Amino acid sequence: MRYKFPLLAIGLEVAMIILFAKFVRYETGSPVPQQQNATKTDRFLPLYPLFQDVHVMIFAGFGFLMTFLKRYGFSGVGFNLLLAALGLQWGSVVQGLLHSRGQGFAIGIHNMINADFSTATVLISFGAVLGKTSPIQMLIMTILEIAVFAGNEYLVGEIFKASDIGASMTIHAFGAYFGLAVAGILYRPGLKKGHWNEESVYHSDLFAMIGTVFLWVFWPSFNSAIAEPGEAQYRAIVNSYFSLAACVITAYALSSLVQHQGKLDMVHIQNATLAGGVAVGTCADMDIQPYVSMIIGSTAGIVSVLGYKFLTPLLAKLMIQDTCGVHNLHGLPGVMGGLASIVAIAMNMSSKSTVAMQAAALGSSIGTAVVGGLMTGLILRIPIWDQAPDQYCYDDSVYWEVPEHRELDDRFPEPEDHRQQKPEV
Amino acid sequence: MRYKFPLLAIGLEVAMIILFAKFVRYETGSPVPQQQNATKTDRFLPLYPLFQDVHVMIFAGFGFLMTFLKRYGFSGVGFNLLLAALGLQWGSVVQGLLHSRGQGFAIGIHNMINADFSTATVLISFGAVLGKTSPIQMLIMTILEIAVFAGNEYLVGEIFKASDIGASMTIHAFGAYFGLAVAGILYRPGLKKGHWNEESVYHSDLFAMIGTVFLWVFWPSFNSAIAEPGEAQYRAIVNSYFSLAACVITAYALSSLVQHQGKLDMVHIQNATLAGGVAVGTCADMDIQPYVSMIIGSTAGIVSVLGYKFLTPLLAKLMIQDTCGVHNLHGLPGVMGGLASIVAIAMNMSSKSTVAMQAAALGSSIGTAVVGGLMTGLILRIPIWDQAPDQYCYDDSVYWEVPEHRELDDRFPEPEDHRQQKPEV
Amino acid sequence: MRYKFPLLAIGLEVAMIILFAKFVRYETGSPVPQQQNATKTDRFLPLYPLFQDVHVMIFAGFGFLMTFLKRYGFSGVGFNLLLAALGLQWGSVVQGLLHSRGQGFAIGIHNMINADFSTATVLISFGAVLGKTSPIQMLIMTILEIAVFAGNEYLVGEIFKASDIGASMTIHAFGAYFGLAVAGILYRPGLKKGHWNEESVYHSDLFAMIGTVFLWVFWPSFNSAIAEPGEAQYRAIVNSYFSLAACVITAYALSSLVQHQGKLDMVHIQNATLAGGVAVGTCADMDIQPYVSMIIGSTAGIVSVLGYKFLTPLLAKLMIQDTCGVHNLHGLPGVMGGLASIVAIAMNMSSKSTVAMQAAALGSSIGTAVVGGLMTGLILRIPIWDQAPDQYCYDDSVYWEVPEHRELDDRFPEPEDHRQQKPEV
Repeated sequence: MRYKFPLLAIGLEVAMIILFAKFVRYETGSPVPQQQNATKTDRFLPLYPLFQDVHVMIFAGFGFLMTFLKRYGFSGVGFNLLLAALGLQWGSVVQGLLHSRGQGFAIGIHNMINADFSTATVLISFGAVLGKTSPIQMLIMTILEIAVFAGNEYLVGEIFKASDIGASMTIHAFGAYFGLAVAGILYRPGLKKGHWNEESVYHSDLFAMIGTVFLWVFWPSFNSAIAEPGEAQYRAIVNSYFSLAACVITAYALSSLVQHQGKLDMVHIQNATLAGGVAVGTCADMDIQPYVSMIIGSTAGIVSVLGYKFLTPLLAKLMIQDTCGVHNLHGLPGVMGGLASIVAIAMNMSSKSTVAMQAAALGSSIGTAVVGGLMTGLILRIPIWDQAPDQYCYDDSVYWEVPEHRELDDRFPEPEDHRQQKPEV
Repeated sequence: MRYKFPLLAIGLEVAMIILFAKFVRYETGSPVPQQQNATKTDRFLPLYPLFQDVHVMIFAGFGFLMTFLKRYGFSGVGFNLLLAALGLQWGSVVQGLLHSRGQGFAIGIHNMINADFSTATVLISFGAVLGKTSPIQMLIMTILEIAVFAGNEYLVGEIFKASDIGASMTIHAFGAYFGLAVAGILYRPGLKKGHWNEESVYHSDLFAMIGTVFLWVFWPSFNSAIAEPGEAQYRAIVNSYFSLAACVITAYALSSLVQHQGKLDMVHIQNATLAGGVAVGTCADMDIQPYVSMIIGSTAGIVSVLGYKFLTPLLAKLMIQDTCGVHNLHGLPGVMGGLASIVAIAMNMSSKSTVAMQAAALGSSIGTAVVGGLMTGLILRIPIWDQAPDQYCYDDSVYWEVPEHRELDDRFPEPEDHRQQKPEV
Repeated sequence: MRYKFPLLAIGLEVAMIILFAKFVRYETGSPVPQQQNATKTDRFLPLYPLFQDVHVMIFAGFGFLMTFLKRYGFSGVGFNLLLAALGLQWGSVVQGLLHSRGQGFAIGIHNMINADFSTATVLISFGAVLGKTSPIQMLIMTILEIAVFAGNEYLVGEIFKASDIGASMTIHAFGAYFGLAVAGILYRPGLKKGHWNEESVYHSDLFAMIGTVFLWVFWPSFNSAIAEPGEAQYRAIVNSYFSLAACVITAYALSSLVQHQGKLDMVHIQNATLAGGVAVGTCADMDIQPYVSMIIGSTAGIVSVLGYKFLTPLLAKLMIQDTCGVHNLHGLPGVMGGLASIVAIAMNMSSKSTVAMQAAALGSSIGTAVVGGLMTGLILRIPIWDQAPDQYCYDDSVYWEVPEHRELDDRFPEPEDHRQQKPEV
């Protein structure tokens, strides 16, 4: 950590500045073809609130969602900020260059939304390896994963011309399977029986709920931000809203059902309540009707809780230790989203996409994620990236100066010896 | 809790899906009569940021406001999410059907805002019974209260044609008196002398301030979201902004004044600072002038703190145990809002409503709330809804799996025996 | 505290109401000259989301940023709310009267944004004296500082006609140097060796991160809210977005670099990551190109961390105790912002401002801040404002009723004696 991390970070930032200097310029106020009286920058402000909603999700939502561990809160929200800040710069460049075929490009509101989107994949994968990787490894993963993500996103959108407006496949399934592949390669046999730090305390679970609530509230903006204006964008919002609401009800029900005393589990509430936003993503802008989005959301809540209960322990035995259970929040619901779009298109011809294109997009998203994740994992396994030993996993004190006292273990006022010095007021 | 809760929740969600399938459809992009070049979905996006502000209030604002109890934070924010997610689905259907006279209806931005609004009544009532009811009781209350709310709202808006843009009467007073009536029926003599869990700790009070701050900041959006575009909506924002600011100053002043050492009380700061938003609600869009909204806000801050200091203990003696003091934040300021509108209309003819219509609306809101609340309370009192015994009140561990340790009771690093295994890094 | 504080607060609120009654009215829907089909209130709603972003920054952002101290969280977020609520009323009046030359004025969206802005100066200065001043002193400082701020802002904008869209000079540098001057006058030799309360605990640092994240996310709105619509506003958003992202990377790198074990310091992460938003402020709307804003942001991150590491301890020796290090987050980056605008204008003629005007604005902002701060400090030093003695610094229990227990020092369930009363469920 001593010099490798700061030098790598500074080196990456210098590289970003050079890339921006060479390729990135402003959009100008020149008129948009075919739209009288409208300039490109006119389209910026109406979408800016949706961008800001997504921005809150990335930095406050994902950030606080990852503070649930009792000794890893600084890293949860802190590394989230670091990775997302790097990722949005790198994502802008990679996606911009791909779509301009290397010609340079202007930054519009869609670029900014997509830049935030591309960081989401990294943050999802970060959840799978949370507590077990160094910041150096995370910076490297950010660079590699966004490059692969942009490639897949280009393939899905430009070559297959598939529809994935809420990015269930290209972000959620991709991010989850990429992260699981990395986690598999970085498998730590020493953690097979769990780790004394891998648990929450009461207030760390409440900090995580900040993340859950802001993710939940703004998810309709995530699913609609880059939709076609008008009816499609409207539908993306409405479908997401009702899918998320339905998902909450079934997630609570299942959480209670799978525990032998019927008690709710905070892990499920923090995560599975969001699965409805993921699962409805791909077909959010389609003409599927609100009640169908509620069916999708309810199913996602059920699948996600069952995943946490039964699949995560199984994966751990299969050498994939998924700290946040991203497979249940992003992986399974992401695949569900892709499958739902296939069914929707099969039953209804309103989309510009076809069943085959959607299936190709789903396959490509999972395939590139697994291959990219395995390769990234192998690179991250090279023992020069300051990975902490098993004992130090899930522990902020390896990378952060932490307060000597976690909490005041005493009644509110300061210790007796200080108190005695106090005059009466 | 073992099976009743999950089966009831799943049953309700299935019912919602069936109702949506039968009655709810999309709005289409067809032109709006009398508005050239404007389609219905065009009106969606400009109001979407206001909807999202309200959405944050409902889920983050109300949710975290209810985390102030030391052992009931999971339930505070968690059940808030559950009830609101159910309430917005049920509210959409009930309100939509009432206004379409059972014909089915399309979901527009106003329906979504109103759906969130209808959940607010339940969340207010939830505050009155916080810690003393089971999730099963809360689900039943959600269904019953929103039905009554929608009935009263229809009466006030369509029959009386009264003006209540920020819903001081139809949401705040209604929600408070409904909740108080339920609390009265569910009176627990065993809690007469208080409960060892009914107190905050330092950080639970800070979590509650997250709720306060987001409610305070976005309240102008709550009061203006469904106002007429243009001047009325503008006035609703401006009046709420200044009323809330004035209310903060008097709430702080009074909180200090009523404590014998002049110290501030977190309960007042968390709640009474918001009373200005409630009290200005009904006449927020009227031409009352900014300084009048500041008078309303200042008065509300005073009334609310006095209510917490003197009225809540009195009500508790009268067998109404109001956990969050919703009478002081929503009840009294809600009534004030109704009265202010009567005065405003009596002095100024600019509103389409009349004094009589406003008075009828206020009476109807309180009357239906009390009657509805009493009946709901009687239903909730049937001893089959898994209500916890007195000892388990205000305690998450009845309904949630809670971490074994609340906080690390030690210095930051892990226990000595773990430490010794650590190699030097 | 017993009567002075509440009476002063109520007196100030009465004064605000009188000033509003005399000078403040609504904007009307009358047409805007030179803009066909546009009324003044039409311009309100499109900027309202940006206003709300700024509003969140002021109340949630600044508020929670100041909860990092272990025993001063109630005061951090609580006094922030109080000062901001007073400041926005007073700021509306003072700025409105100055720009209308005492004629009275209508409240538009720009007035509301500027009202929030004027409170930002006070909140920045509050950070410098955090924990060492009484609420009475803070109310007085709010009134005095905003008056001086409005004078300087008028000078900079109307007389010098300088450009400072993100207010690096007029808000950030001004607020910081004003606060440092006050802190210098209120110097407490007894705190020279630090104070047992001037430290964080684990969760207080996480509460502060709520502030950091919301400030970081919405800073582009702060820098663009009052920009010219169209290209200038667009550029202000884009430049701020990338400057902030670049700043995060260098702040993390430097934080690790200056600590002898390479560990990150939460103080840097909470604050220095935001310096990019300050430093790019003045030239945010200029045609400087995205990569230049990234250079500005990266530099600001470096300067800010170095300031925390080396300058804050030095200033403390020079009798200026800067609790939050506002000099590093607002002072130095604010000056950087002014200097960057001078360089930008020297190299590029696109701004309406000139090098001389910008230099005059920077000098005037620092000069009036220091003079105003010194005079305010002298007034605050009069020993009638209930300033707490040294032992009680950074301690909520002087001004707040605090819970008897800070945290449950035990395992989750209640004490054994309560437990025994419980029946089996």
